[in-house]
Amino acid sequence: MKKAGVDFYIVPSADFHQSEYAGAYFAARKFMTGFTGSAGTALFTDEEAYLWTDGRYFIQAAQQLQGSTITLMKMGEPGVPTLEKFLEEHVKEGQTIGFDGRVVSKGMGTRYTEIAEKNGASISYREDLIDKIWTDRPALSTNPAFHLDIQYTGETAESKLARIREEMTKEGADLHVLTTLDDICWTFNFRGDDVRYSPLVYSYCLIAMDHVDLYMDAAKADQQMLDDFAKNQVTIHPYNDIYQDIQKLTGGHTLLLDPGRLNYALYNLIPEDVTKVEKRNPEILMKAVKNETEIANIRQAELKDSVAHVRFMKWLKENVGKEKITEISASDKLDEFRAEMGNFLRPSFGPISSYGEHGAIVHYSATPETNVELKPGALYLTDTGAGFYEGSTDVTRTYALGEVPQIMKDHFTLVAISNLSLANVKFKEGACGQNLDYEARRPFWERNLDFNHGTGHGVGYLLNIHEGPAGFNWRIREGAYTPLQEGMVITDEPGIYIEGSHGIRLENEVLVRKGVKNAYGQFMYLETLTLIPFDLDAINPDLMSEREKEWLNAYHRKVYETLCPMLNVEEQEWLKKYTRAI
Amino acid sequence: MKKAGVDFYIVPSADFHQSEYAGAYFAARKFMTGFTGSAGTALFTDEEAYLWTDGRYFIQAAQQLQGSTITLMKMGEPGVPTLEKFLEEHVKEGQTIGFDGRVVSKGMGTRYTEIAEKNGASISYREDLIDKIWTDRPALSTNPAFHLDIQYTGETAESKLARIREEMTKEGADLHVLTTLDDICWTFNFRGDDVRYSPLVYSYCLIAMDHVDLYMDAAKADQQMLDDFAKNQVTIHPYNDIYQDIQKLTGGHTLLLDPGRLNYALYNLIPEDVTKVEKRNPEILMKAVKNETEIANIRQAELKDSVAHVRFMKWLKENVGKEKITEISASDKLDEFRAEMGNFLRPSFGPISSYGEHGAIVHYSATPETNVELKPGALYLTDTGAGFYEGSTDVTRTYALGEVPQIMKDHFTLVAISNLSLANVKFKEGACGQNLDYEARRPFWERNLDFNHGTGHGVGYLLNIHEGPAGFNWRIREGAYTPLQEGMVITDEPGIYIEGSHGIRLENEVLVRKGVKNAYGQFMYLETLTLIPFDLDAINPDLMSEREKEWLNAYHRKVYETLCPMLNVEEQEWLKKYTRAI
Repeated sequence: MKKAGVDFYIVPSADFHQSEYAGAYFAARKFMTGFTGSAGTALFTDEEAYLWTDGRYFIQAAQQLQGSTITLMKMGEPGVPTLEKFLEEHVKEGQTIGFDGRVVSKGMGTRYTEIAEKNGASISYREDLIDKIWTDRPALSTNPAFHLDIQYTGETAESKLARIREEMTKEGADLHVLTTLDDICWTFNFRGDDVRYSPLVYSYCLIAMDHVDLYMDAAKADQQMLDDFAKNQVTIHPYNDIYQDIQKLTGGHTLLLDPGRLNYALYNLIPEDVTKVEKRNPEILMKAVKNETEIANIRQAELKDSVAHVRFMKWLKENVGKEKITEISASDKLDEFRAEMGNFLRPSFGPISSYGEHGAIVHYSATPETNVELKPGALYLTDTGAGFYEGSTDVTRTYALGEVPQIMKDHFTLVAISNLSLANVKFKEGACGQNLDYEARRPFWERNLDFNHGTGHGVGYLLNIHEGPAGFNWRIREGAYTPLQEGMVITDEPGIYIEGSHGIRLENEVLVRKGVKNAYGQFMYLETLTLIPFDLDAINPDLMSEREKEWLNAYHRKVYETLCPMLNVEEQEWLKKYTRAI
Repeated sequence: MKKAGVDFYIVPSADFHQSEYAGAYFAARKFMTGFTGSAGTALFTDEEAYLWTDGRYFIQAAQQLQGSTITLMKMGEPGVPTLEKFLEEHVKEGQTIGFDGRVVSKGMGTRYTEIAEKNGASISYREDLIDKIWTDRPALSTNPAFHLDIQYTGETAESKLARIREEMTKEGADLHVLTTLDDICWTFNFRGDDVRYSPLVYSYCLIAMDHVDLYMDAAKADQQMLDDFAKNQVTIHPYNDIYQDIQKLTGGHTLLLDPGRLNYALYNLIPEDVTKVEKRNPEILMKAVKNETEIANIRQAELKDSVAHVRFMKWLKENVGKEKITEISASDKLDEFRAEMGNFLRPSFGPISSYGEHGAIVHYSATPETNVELKPGALYLTDTGAGFYEGSTDVTRTYALGEVPQIMKDHFTLVAISNLSLANVKFKEGACGQNLDYEARRPFWERNLDFNHGTGHGVGYLLNIHEGPAGFNWRIREGAYTPLQEGMVITDEPGIYIEGSHGIRLENEVLVRKGVKNAYGQFMYLETLTLIPFDLDAINPDLMSEREKEWLNAYHRKVYETLCPMLNVEEQEWLKKYTRAI
């Protein structure tokens, strides 16, 4: 930092593409702090170090920072300044704020620039200082990519490009730069293996009205991809060439870009005389609204996942305390059941398999050091997902192992009520997740309780497991609310976390559907796609209203009726018991 | 329009101050169209005329436009373009969009200017064309104003100015232009009589760090106002002088202004070298959060209003069908009961007193032509308010007169459930009305029903009856959501409207209060201030859950216990029956 003349150096958890999961090459923040959570930003000064992270990771970050000199900054807690506020207060005249401009979004980089200007300081964004000290940095992935067939995507790249170009025309643009990996993979119907769980390919692209320049390692492409590229006038260039090519654009162009997604370095290399149209990438909404083929596939994926889960639940209930089952072996077992269902590509994200008090760590990841044995008398939480060719799943269940204390049953029942309340909302077209989230919070807020995470997120189709723009949460932020549209697939996952004791979460995927249309408008509802019992061993019916009991019974009836044909007689009998009416 | 070279002329429903209720002088849109609703914008071309209005006024506007050549544009309905969209599509190169820049907000005027620029057209904003044809235009009010005592306001102008200047300093401003009448009256603790129901005074002001320039008719001020002005370095100037004075500002100044509130003409007269800070007026949030004195007064006002209502309800139930009662005589009678309570200044807005099918017209205003007699067998809706010195009230009740059809009882019960569901929300600090509105919509949306208006609005203290920034509604709009804060007073007023048959609305005022604070955060709840029975003659208990019945019973217990000491024995007996547990 001294050599580079930098007084404050910011290290976010990002790759060059603002991806959710960055590959090992990009784990600079983890390398510097030891904190392994998916979200967090580190800040270094000449004497101090800080880590900002959100409510999901407060417990985990505190544990992983223990023994370091890094100060944990709990985002959203009273009295804790944001990173921006902190910079505003601490950066002095003549100082320099530094960061690698490729791992910072245009929006955030601009905010840092504004803060620097306001405080009479300057910005340095062209150097990756971590690279200079990270001697054993992993290489960028060279894993192969593959074309995803029309039977899974339901729409050709040709058709998607036509829709994208329509949006470009609406905005008066003749060029569109796309750097988000899931948007690129969705547009061109390919997938890869450059990131651990999200089957994405490191790439950038420039979409013109009559051709496309795609920047990626050409050696990764399979023949079907090459054929499809040829058909759609897609030319492959080396991955890093976009930083040169973008500087060659002429003033005649109008470029559509997403300032929240483009990295700061790439943005700043766009020639000044190119007209910029700054809007949310049109691909974001397009891919969130699943087409009929995708929906049919996703139903199939959810069905397979649910059967695997029911088998896992039966196996777990019957074998816990009899054979040695650990957090890690349990999630491996679940993946075995999934693989047996066929067409299984890989887990769709890192498994959360947490027993007892580990359940209270929202994004717990079992390691050989923390891995404990599952025994009767406590709760076990499993939040995992499958990447089938028919789509990605994301599901959480919490199971009572043996007899558990009453307070755990009561908490479990609250979470079940919360999940079912949200799943049964009826709303009008135009409503956003923020309008409906109260239904999930109500059972908690009425008891002065809460859970410190969003209630649900969109789910990508073999892309990112957390996919925008819609979701369920209650905080309304500028530009961060999107009306729910038919075809969106979103999770419904309330929970409760009692530090040192237990954690409970119940997560289903729901599909947004149209209901009645009348003089009052277009009504909408949610269809639950995930069909796995809510463990009746942990339900306290006395806490439930008649209406809530009927919701649970109706859900269990549907689980039983839908899964029966896929189960053997013994499994059917077992499921009957665990879906009985209460 | 031809003489002025104008092709499209816009006539909104506004005065120079973006007020909710404009004085008679400003009723240009009504003069041009005959439509008397409070919200609507007319557009004239050389051959056509259009009127845009919102859901509250669809029925009324259609009736009032009948026989004219004016096309009704129903805002928010599918296929109906907004006025802006309409202009975008119809204004051609070389044409001119005209409006009086004093009655159009800066924000809206800028949008019109952008549309003109985009279409190669121009803007003309310096002429009031309506004034040239409106020969019998009413004069501007010269009614006296008065100082509102500290026992009602709870805070001196000195203290309010100090808080405002603190906000100015935060924004780096040394000057603040304020043109909204309620903000000015609130800041300087005076009220007047320039607008029919809102006791406001036509004025503008420029707040500097050490003095204030106030633009109003000096003859209106009473001695207490003059004394207070002298104490706070407030100089009075003629009302219209601000248009000259603002042009004399020098470049050394930084001016805080609210682009959504300032009129377009005034904004455009600010010299270019004055630095503008464009933010929401800080007074808006300050006056929405009522202080302890105001809250104590408002409780008293609500109590007085509730007693008056109970007497009215008893009188109405006992006399309908026996003596002649009409829509107009009923609301006069209610105001008599209110006046008897003492310290009654005036109604706080135009009464809605609607019988039978008139109830379906949300903003119905009975005229001698429409005035009908109240008879047993139908519903009667009264939405009225009192301006007591202790604060303004806004309350709606719907009463069954005699025996009414089952469908009306069922609808009434839904409205009661909706009102009570919202009144009983528990939430966390930071939640906005948009997060909670679903509780009011749920009983309707579950049955594919809805009501076409917001569920609640803030209430001013002898200012505007509809006061921002918080409220209950479900549509999330950029910048139009505000977390609920302790001390805000908001209405809770769901309804149902069946054209040609009946209308039902139940409106209480609720106070936002802090509840438990714990590790999960600061919890909040609503306290219902209005204490008037929900007519049990129209309740169908079979539609209510146990929880909903308990909400109603608890509310009725509170009504009975609180009002009893203010009633005579006969009234107490009567109230006991109408607040009995179901």
